[in-house]
Amino acid sequence: MSDQNNDSTRRGFLMNAGAGLLAAAVPATQLAPPDKQPPNLDVPEPLGKKVGWAIVGLGKLALEEVMPAFARCEKSRPVALVSGHPDKAKQVAERYGINPKSIYNYENYDTIKDNPEIQVVYNILPNHMHAEYTIRGHQAGKHVLCEKPMAATVRECEQMIDAAKNAQRKLMIGYRLRYEPYNQTAIEMARKKQFGEIKLIESSNVQDVQAPNIRLSKQTAGGPLGDVGVYCINACRYLTGEEPVEVTGTQHQPKDDPRFAEVPESVAFTLRFPSGVMGYCGCSFGGAESRRYRVQCAKGWFELDPAFAYTGLELHTSQEKTRSQINLPQKNHFAAEMDHLSTCILDNKDPLTPGEEGLADMKVMAAIEESVRTGKAVAVS
Amino acid sequence: MSDQNNDSTRRGFLMNAGAGLLAAAVPATQLAPPDKQPPNLDVPEPLGKKVGWAIVGLGKLALEEVMPAFARCEKSRPVALVSGHPDKAKQVAERYGINPKSIYNYENYDTIKDNPEIQVVYNILPNHMHAEYTIRGHQAGKHVLCEKPMAATVRECEQMIDAAKNAQRKLMIGYRLRYEPYNQTAIEMARKKQFGEIKLIESSNVQDVQAPNIRLSKQTAGGPLGDVGVYCINACRYLTGEEPVEVTGTQHQPKDDPRFAEVPESVAFTLRFPSGVMGYCGCSFGGAESRRYRVQCAKGWFELDPAFAYTGLELHTSQEKTRSQINLPQKNHFAAEMDHLSTCILDNKDPLTPGEEGLADMKVMAAIEESVRTGKAVAVS
Amino acid sequence: MSDQNNDSTRRGFLMNAGAGLLAAAVPATQLAPPDKQPPNLDVPEPLGKKVGWAIVGLGKLALEEVMPAFARCEKSRPVALVSGHPDKAKQVAERYGINPKSIYNYENYDTIKDNPEIQVVYNILPNHMHAEYTIRGHQAGKHVLCEKPMAATVRECEQMIDAAKNAQRKLMIGYRLRYEPYNQTAIEMARKKQFGEIKLIESSNVQDVQAPNIRLSKQTAGGPLGDVGVYCINACRYLTGEEPVEVTGTQHQPKDDPRFAEVPESVAFTLRFPSGVMGYCGCSFGGAESRRYRVQCAKGWFELDPAFAYTGLELHTSQEKTRSQINLPQKNHFAAEMDHLSTCILDNKDPLTPGEEGLADMKVMAAIEESVRTGKAVAVS
Amino acid sequence: MSDQNNDSTRRGFLMNAGAGLLAAAVPATQLAPPDKQPPNLDVPEPLGKKVGWAIVGLGKLALEEVMPAFARCEKSRPVALVSGHPDKAKQVAERYGINPKSIYNYENYDTIKDNPEIQVVYNILPNHMHAEYTIRGHQAGKHVLCEKPMAATVRECEQMIDAAKNAQRKLMIGYRLRYEPYNQTAIEMARKKQFGEIKLIESSNVQDVQAPNIRLSKQTAGGPLGDVGVYCINACRYLTGEEPVEVTGTQHQPKDDPRFAEVPESVAFTLRFPSGVMGYCGCSFGGAESRRYRVQCAKGWFELDPAFAYTGLELHTSQEKTRSQINLPQKNHFAAEMDHLSTCILDNKDPLTPGEEGLADMKVMAAIEESVRTGKAVAVS
Repeated sequence: MSDQNNDSTRRGFLMNAGAGLLAAAVPATQLAPPDKQPPNLDVPEPLGKKVGWAIVGLGKLALEEVMPAFARCEKSRPVALVSGHPDKAKQVAERYGINPKSIYNYENYDTIKDNPEIQVVYNILPNHMHAEYTIRGHQAGKHVLCEKPMAATVRECEQMIDAAKNAQRKLMIGYRLRYEPYNQTAIEMARKKQFGEIKLIESSNVQDVQAPNIRLSKQTAGGPLGDVGVYCINACRYLTGEEPVEVTGTQHQPKDDPRFAEVPESVAFTLRFPSGVMGYCGCSFGGAESRRYRVQCAKGWFELDPAFAYTGLELHTSQEKTRSQINLPQKNHFAAEMDHLSTCILDNKDPLTPGEEGLADMKVMAAIEESVRTGKAVAVS
Repeated sequence: MSDQNNDSTRRGFLMNAGAGLLAAAVPATQLAPPDKQPPNLDVPEPLGKKVGWAIVGLGKLALEEVMPAFARCEKSRPVALVSGHPDKAKQVAERYGINPKSIYNYENYDTIKDNPEIQVVYNILPNHMHAEYTIRGHQAGKHVLCEKPMAATVRECEQMIDAAKNAQRKLMIGYRLRYEPYNQTAIEMARKKQFGEIKLIESSNVQDVQAPNIRLSKQTAGGPLGDVGVYCINACRYLTGEEPVEVTGTQHQPKDDPRFAEVPESVAFTLRFPSGVMGYCGCSFGGAESRRYRVQCAKGWFELDPAFAYTGLELHTSQEKTRSQINLPQKNHFAAEMDHLSTCILDNKDPLTPGEEGLADMKVMAAIEESVRTGKAVAVS
Repeated sequence: MSDQNNDSTRRGFLMNAGAGLLAAAVPATQLAPPDKQPPNLDVPEPLGKKVGWAIVGLGKLALEEVMPAFARCEKSRPVALVSGHPDKAKQVAERYGINPKSIYNYENYDTIKDNPEIQVVYNILPNHMHAEYTIRGHQAGKHVLCEKPMAATVRECEQMIDAAKNAQRKLMIGYRLRYEPYNQTAIEMARKKQFGEIKLIESSNVQDVQAPNIRLSKQTAGGPLGDVGVYCINACRYLTGEEPVEVTGTQHQPKDDPRFAEVPESVAFTLRFPSGVMGYCGCSFGGAESRRYRVQCAKGWFELDPAFAYTGLELHTSQEKTRSQINLPQKNHFAAEMDHLSTCILDNKDPLTPGEEGLADMKVMAAIEESVRTGKAVAVS
Repeated sequence: MSDQNNDSTRRGFLMNAGAGLLAAAVPATQLAPPDKQPPNLDVPEPLGKKVGWAIVGLGKLALEEVMPAFARCEKSRPVALVSGHPDKAKQVAERYGINPKSIYNYENYDTIKDNPEIQVVYNILPNHMHAEYTIRGHQAGKHVLCEKPMAATVRECEQMIDAAKNAQRKLMIGYRLRYEPYNQTAIEMARKKQFGEIKLIESSNVQDVQAPNIRLSKQTAGGPLGDVGVYCINACRYLTGEEPVEVTGTQHQPKDDPRFAEVPESVAFTLRFPSGVMGYCGCSFGGAESRRYRVQCAKGWFELDPAFAYTGLELHTSQEKTRSQINLPQKNHFAAEMDHLSTCILDNKDPLTPGEEGLADMKVMAAIEESVRTGKAVAVS
């Protein structure tokens, strides 16, 4: 028996077990009455209806994170694939029990409208394809979960939101951190002013991106601000619950590193919020992993480090002379976000991170880029 | 697109994508040739043959850990259940896609011999039932994975090993930590003498067990030494690679706590190994969780804290003036151990932790108990 | 101006400062009234009477720790030296402003009785000389602070206590950890049951001792139990506030390491206390530094790691899902213990760690050694 | 005997010790020859000449940090005080053995030129008085150590440097962190590119300043940028070894907090260096203590947290999957910086942090303030 079964329900075995070759049964008088048995040992409830998902784009994220995450979902199941590689798609379909007739490519993508099993599309395509395939998804009558950054421009974001409205379908942006316990707890600490008023937020998101990689291409809307800096921006926004009023930005694009022929290596920026909170942030495609934020408040601080990774997030706090690390249950981020949208669809509710959330970040990014170009502080429209 | 896809293979999408409503395609000249594409993005290999498992005992460990772990297995799948609760078994079977005809109870357990889908039995019953159901499993022609502690007595362990031999089937004890990266790395550090010769091993395994719980019952072979202390003993053995020659033990059984009417609350013990390494350990059912070991060597130390939990293990080292924490990939312990036995079955090899491993621990435990009774240091036979 | 002066009292400067060449004075109306000025900026109180100390033995501890610590003392000053090396003593006297006439050697040591400036003797000699020079100190009419371990045998300890009583002088043992905030806080946590009842105490004190070193000599009462293991024993005693009733011990003395020709390399032992708390401990002269304890309680644990070093102690706690590190002010251990005894002398009070405290540890060590020899659990008399 | 004396030299005692009442002496043959004795146990070298210091300004920093630090100095001793409070000065003089005739006030300060014991003046006055009293010190023929920020304006800094040149005396700014091991090691890691090229530096210095406090006054040149932000600026400069080419700044000055009637509460800023490294920093007088930097490099990062405190600095690194904490010896920052200048005076060398160092920081601060005012990125002249 395992050492971690701090419960009595194993005794249930004994009631029906045979006399035993080697061991005597425990007298029935020692057994707790059935109503005293902890309920959490029951078999999970019979499964309710699961929403059918089409995965659009079978890259690394889809194969290594999203597809396996369905095993952790209560409300979501994969029913279709959209890929430019039929062989790859066939293998994936086989592994995950998807009907091979539900494999689509980018030409016949719009025919998903004829497949009623598909209720929602998960758009995991490169950034510059987010708008097109989201809009076509909505036009096919499907709900859409679109990866971040939402699109390449503010204009695209607005078109996507319009498409969802016109189709009367839900559009959610894949801000997975809003659906996992560490960032949720940080938001709660901020809202409850657990360490007093927030004064400054310090955040970085740094990765080492090796060429070739479409994230290094301008045409595919790559670059560190959209791909990793968006985490810092989004965090400052969800931690304050405010929209920034003004930003400054500065960047570095080395001339001697071919990786950064089209996009900057690093961007540093500041955000000023109406309440007076200021964020100062750095993002880069040229450094070793560093992905964190510290929320500096009147009476203490709390930080996530790492804050933005798929797993292994850590929550640290400091108040007076005590530094603490708080362990929370780890949740699969992708399962959590997919089930959130599935539940919204089943219950006809708005998702926590709709298209407007992606649009707001895009406006901040556009302002930072303008500040980089003009050398001036830029108001966020 | 996600921020963590440091690869170029997303560009594969572009080749087949339509002209695009809003974004231009990347010129084909920018694309890497297919043979440069990182192979790890390929779909996992078509699945090979999976070994069929029968789960015996549907308690908390089975429901919360073992059944979900099959989703992480490459070589193992659940094909049968053995339970005294037909309704519960039926629900579990439904959830995990097990044929309802493959549900057994403790009376008809032996008829599993007629079910060729079942190749191996996972015995997750209370400790005092380990021997009987392992032996009956072997007699039914099945391989067996049996939870630790292996049994209630040295005699039972020997009978189980004999049963496996007679049946020409494999018997493995569920020492899951031998199959996960943190303890494996610790063993490697010990073998390579990365911090010099081991001098002392300090280990604790403390939990707070609330009544009612069969682990507090003498008749079901409960008590802290067998259920949690076995981890410390096993760790000292796998870290040194030696068998202890002599032990001392002392225990506390409070008179005023009804939980400990039948079993001691805590046991403290020492182990002396041929090389001169000494272990000093404590285990308890009455304290808050503390599950660790520190291996104190000539030139530094390394420790796991926690060392014995299902998740969240941490590896720390100290050498000269530097303390380090080494992050390793987390693996599902149960999937890893089940796949290990499945692979041994498929390849006809001996498991890493056979019945003899459980017997060795049992002999140490018997010696500690004798030392507690007699007040003398006891040689391990 | 420094960044850490969070106070207003600098403004005091301005009141009397000249008109200024470059900067205008702050108007007087901006100044806080004098009674609002924080009192902690006042000059420390005029010093009271300081007790005169003679340092006996000018080894590493005396030169590197004790002599410099006088600069941190409020109640203690060095007035005499006792050494077998007149030249060294002369240099030390010069550095610390000690009258060269107050330098003694081991022959004329007893003449300190004629020096009224000397009120207390700090005995920092090798262990086997603790008894003789403490007793001679008392016979010379002086109070004595004696380093730990108190002496080589229980008999010697008793003779020392008798000598103090006969001379009506105070005898204190140098348990410096009782006078610094980290161990004091740990004791408070234990007494207040902050994490519930103590169940188990795990402690190690491991060092790497290189030959030649008198601590490796049997004749000078060396060996790991007395020199480092005493910390674990003392900690278990001050954390529980109890005397152990029974101990077990086992040791390793390698045959192939010339360092351990006379003394064991390592000793592992257990202590059982009347309340049921058990300690399990390891000490060694052959391993890299590891000096800690964890107090495992019903609802959590607290630990010091390091616990026994001169500086850099750390206090960690665990309760439910939170691990915390609590930063306390660092205090010079030697200044604190010397001032404690000086205060006891000035106020005619008993020290917190009198000779009886050293005797109690010595009895436990004697019992552990007997257990090692006999292979039996030994009651502590 | 203490447990931490890993040496053999205590045996020296034995050579001259008496026959012993209770213990036999170790045979002389066991003793190491004198030339084998570790030299570090010798008495410290006879003291050389110490440079005489006058402390100007007896505020909290002087009383709590600087005066006690002289006990840790090898080359520096206090010989005079300059204060507007004669009673306070008299008490301090008494405590530290300073001739009461060497107490000066702000009117007769210039007469220090007639006191040959005074070689160097430590200017610990409020920021707006730094220039005047430094210049008057030089005019009196003295070397000067001036606290940071060097002065209120770039113009003042230049006048101070000129005054030192004219007087042919040394001017050093009190950048204490350049003289202690943690920041020195960080600089070495940066120079050696231990984790590859630096990409981004993230730094904060946040404190909670309570009114009344001259640091909240505009006239005394208070405000967070000069008092705490200067640490971040200086760190970015000493870590890169470069001067920034362009800065941006933004600030918050709350209208509803009377503390910030004259100075901003917080300032966030970015620094761009010629190599492409960018710093992004935040400083505040309104938040709980957070004082750190992380240097994000191509292959890993290293950070000090805290980085800027007087004690308790910690050095952490991350590379691949390993996070390490490196413990270095703690040094008294003030003793180290004072002895540095004393040594420079004795050896007629230039200090590591001359007036030009303070001027460089002042130029950066002026540029940040201009950026705040103009909303434009500002080139550092």
